[in-house]
Formats: sequence, C-alpha cells, structure tokens
Amino acid sequence: MQITTEDINLAYERIKHIIHRTPVLKSDSINKLANAEILFKCENFQKVGAFKYRGATNAVQSLTEQELSSGVCTHSSGNHAQALALAAKIRGAKSYIIMPSNAPQVKIDGVKAYQGEIFFCEPNLQARESTLDNVQSQTNSTFIHPFKNALVISGQGTASKELLEEVPDLEVIITPVGGGGLLSGTSIYAKGFNSNIQVYGAEPEGASDAHKSFYSGELVSHQVPNTVCDGLLTTLGDINFEIIKKNVDGILLANDKEIIEAMLFIWNRMKIIVEPSCAVPLAVVLKNKEKFEGKKIGIILSGGNIDFSKLKTYL
Amino acid sequence: MQITTEDINLAYERIKHIIHRTPVLKSDSINKLANAEILFKCENFQKVGAFKYRGATNAVQSLTEQELSSGVCTHSSGNHAQALALAAKIRGAKSYIIMPSNAPQVKIDGVKAYQGEIFFCEPNLQARESTLDNVQSQTNSTFIHPFKNALVISGQGTASKELLEEVPDLEVIITPVGGGGLLSGTSIYAKGFNSNIQVYGAEPEGASDAHKSFYSGELVSHQVPNTVCDGLLTTLGDINFEIIKKNVDGILLANDKEIIEAMLFIWNRMKIIVEPSCAVPLAVVLKNKEKFEGKKIGIILSGGNIDFSKLKTYL
Repeated sequence: MQITTEDINLAYERIKHIIHRTPVLKSDSINKLANAEILFKCENFQKVGAFKYRGATNAVQSLTEQELSSGVCTHSSGNHAQALALAAKIRGAKSYIIMPSNAPQVKIDGVKAYQGEIFFCEPNLQARESTLDNVQSQTNSTFIHPFKNALVISGQGTASKELLEEVPDLEVIITPVGGGGLLSGTSIYAKGFNSNIQVYGAEPEGASDAHKSFYSGELVSHQVPNTVCDGLLTTLGDINFEIIKKNVDGILLANDKEIIEAMLFIWNRMKIIVEPSCAVPLAVVLKNKEKFEGKKIGIILSGGNIDFSKLKTYL
Repeated sequence: MQITTEDINLAYERIKHIIHRTPVLKSDSINKLANAEILFKCENFQKVGAFKYRGATNAVQSLTEQELSSGVCTHSSGNHAQALALAAKIRGAKSYIIMPSNAPQVKIDGVKAYQGEIFFCEPNLQARESTLDNVQSQTNSTFIHPFKNALVISGQGTASKELLEEVPDLEVIITPVGGGGLLSGTSIYAKGFNSNIQVYGAEPEGASDAHKSFYSGELVSHQVPNTVCDGLLTTLGDINFEIIKKNVDGILLANDKEIIEAMLFIWNRMKIIVEPSCAVPLAVVLKNKEKFEGKKIGIILSGGNIDFSKLKTYL
C-alpha cells in the first residue's frame, strides 16, 4: 500500500474544519531535565481526548451518503471507539463498536455519550473477530480498522503536519507505537517534509512487539501484553509495519515505572492530563539522554483519557 | 485598610512582565452539565502553578534593593511559599520559609527548587509564630504574609483584571476562599469594574470559617480544619474579612466528595490538572444549579500543585 504526503495533505483538507488544531506546548523544567528542546503536540486536547479522532474523521468523511446509511463499525478497546462514534454521529450515521468486556469504564462511557452502539466480547482476538463478523453481516456497515486502514493512517499523519508547520526545524519526532497507525502516518509526513528528520517509535517493554518486529525484520503477530499503557496493547499491523520498516529510525523501549514517572512529570510540570501510553516518548528520551542531547524534538502527546480507578495503584 | 482598583492596576503594571498571562478556557460538557456558561481563568498554569505568584511578586517587586538585601520571609504550607521563594530568587534575594512539618512533599520540593531556605515547625499556630519570630530577628528579613498584606491582595486581584479584560460581560465571579487573599482582591476589582457582578467565595465544609464569619458578622479566628483541600486550611484574615463583608455576595459550601467529583470532572473533560482547592467553585455551581442557571460565570482555577501520594486515596 502506497500512502504519500499528498494523501495526508488531502486528509487535512477533509478534516481541518472538524478537528481541533491542538496547541504545541513546552516546559522549561522538562527541557532542563532532558537537556534538549522538546515540543509537545497536545493531542490530549483533541476532540474525544486523542489523536484517533483525526484518522476516524478522515475515514468517515471519505464515505458516500449511500455507504454511510448502513453505518460504520470497528473493534477497539478505547480511543478509536470513541473517535469513530463521534465521527459517525456528526454525519448523522450509526456506529457499531465491538469492545472487550474489560475495556476502561471511561472509554465505554465515551462511546455511549457519542451514541455508539456497543457489542461486548471476550477480550481475545477470536471473540473479537467473530463478533465483528456477526455485526457486519447483520448491519452491512463499513468496517474502519483502528490502524490497518490507509485513510486512518493518513488522518493520523495530520498531527505531524500541524506540528511541522509550527516548528519546521525539528530534528527528531517521537510517537508511541501500538498498532502503528500514528507512527506510520507520522513517519510518512515527517520524512516527506525533510528526510533528515529522525523518526522514532516509543513502546512499553511489556508490549514490545513493534521493537521485536523492527529489529528482526519479521512481523510479530501475537503477544500477551502486560503494561499500564492500555492504549498500546495491540500488536503492530502488517501494513503499518511495511511503512515503519521503510521510514522509521528506531523503536525505543521504556518500562512501566519509567513511563509512570514521565507521566507524573508531565502532570506536575505542565499541569495537563496525559494517559500512560502518551508518556512513553518522554520516558525514552529521559532514558536515552546522550542520544537526544541538545536536539529539537517533537513528541506527539497522543491522548488524555484515564480510568483513575485503575491508575491509582500506580500513583 | 483601603485597597482600590487603582492599587490593582498599579500591581499589574509592576508584575505583568514577570507573571504568565494565563489562558481562559471553557468546556462544552461542563457548560451542559451546569446549564451555564463558565469561563475558567487557568491560574494552574501560572508560574509555580498557582495565582499566589501574583501577590508574592507584587510584594517583592515593591521592596527596595536595601530592603531586599536582608531577604524576605513567610509561613506557608504550600503555594505562597513557592511563590515567594521564586519572586525573591528572580530579584537575587534570599527567602526564608517556615513550613509545617506535614506540608506536602511536592510543595517542599518546589520551595527548594527556588532556593528558598526552609525552617520546619510543628503544624500549629504557636509553633509557626515563634519560629517566624526567631527567623525574622536572626535575618532582619521582611515578612510577606500569605494574605494579610495589601500588596499581596492587590497582586491576587490582577487575575480578575485579566479575566474581565477578556470577558467583560461576566455576571458572576467565584473563587475559593481560605485566608481570603484571592477572594478579597477579586471582589475589589470585580465590583470596581461593574458593581452588578456578583462575587462569591467557595469553601469546603470541613474548613467553613469564612462561611461562619460572613453570615454571623463576627470573624471566626480559630478552626480545626478537616478537608482534602490542602490549600484552604487557613482561617480568614481580619483585613480580608473587612473587604469580603463589603464586597462579596455570599459564601457557598461543598463537601469533599462533591469537590473531588468536580476536580475529576475538570481533569477528565478539560485534560488539565487542578488541585482539590481549585475545584470548590465548580462544586458549588453544580450544587446550586438553580442559582446559577443561564449565567455567565468566571471561575478562578487557583492552582495545580498536587501530592498524588496523598490524593490517590480519594480517586
């Protein structure tokens, strides 16, 4: 699958009136600690609280009225679910969301608030796929995959487009990596903008399939994740892996303790709420100080949806 | 003591190049819940993470080089301590801070980061005053009271000046009330700006001395506070009470459960960190919906300094 800078530019024209243009913030104390200049693209302030709204909106806005009349469907434990539900709602379309029975309550409430119809399934791949098949055949709705979808990838890439418009001289861009939608979209845009920009993925040690895939060259298609980062439990998608292999300079790991420390550092110093998945890029910068010393670094703060009842054991 | 709008204007000229002009934010979902239009003045994004930096800076900037050569001192369990330490540091002056031995770690760390010299005392009035006397006589430093000080009150009033510049048609302004520095400064500026603006103080039930004083007409000078709002444990100051009696339209109460709910609502919906003390105004709006229905309300979000190790029991 060939996705280009031009696809991301088209996505941006399609969604720019619907999404928030999120702020780019920095913190003197974080810069001092990292000995670098970090610009945070605050997608935690995006609608539904995450960058996922960009990709979902691009996909839904690309559908015809005819296609939309049967609604859209997806499986997601979290932010993509809310994003698709809202993207459908503002076009007056139905959304059918397959969620694992252990999804965070805050994300279930979010989907309901946007009038998505939820179908719960057991939290495993097989149950998810059979539930999805059932829902699709009953509704004839269009499946919008959370990351293995070219329109979704192009939509996610628009965050970097905005970031590089504001800070064109970035030397490094880092995003979290779960399924790889954000990282693949980011890498296409960044390398097209300036091939010297280094692009890294940041991944929790407890769900390090992208790291393993990247350095072995073989896609790891199964893992049993164990991490506080509930947005990064999925395994890397095949089409995302192909893009990442070509464009990305490395995948860096951090453990949950380092991730929570980075998250609390952002909370305390910047006074903004970011979810654990969102703090992995800062955690890897602080863990690899020599690598990033003196650099001008863009970090996509991917989301801010937190289930405090679960998180409090880590505080 | 006569403090006027003109004093607040002068304070603003003195400090505007040093403080942050903080953003005014709103949230559609909070407005929907409250059935009102709420504008949040985000002093959690102020330097040192609280409005206290305004008052401390105004006081320190008013001192001569000669006066400053002996430093400044104060007693504070929290945000004023950090604020004074930083305000002194940027003028190259020393600060001596008396803190109770049970002060939140995050606030102790803050004072140290700004090179304030800390003197711990037992957490009671007598120990605090005798420690302060000792420190003052040893150092000959100038005492900057956290709220019983005209320059501090004028400085705190500048938050409302900025807010009303941006939203001149506010009908109501609400601030938390502890010692009364913010509420008294706010009320002077707001009533001077437009005498029809209603000004309310919001106070936790577990530290309701301002409420008792306001409705009895007699200053309650002692209480044993019991609330999660660690920024509102102090009793109302005498000079603050005189101003509040004249200018304020009411003091409204909320309990800790309501306050924590309001705080989490701000965290979840606005993705910004506010401390519990800061959420009392929203809690009283949600508790008194009929009173505020359809109104255009300004709320000063007073601070964002949180000790998560203590707070997590409430989440």
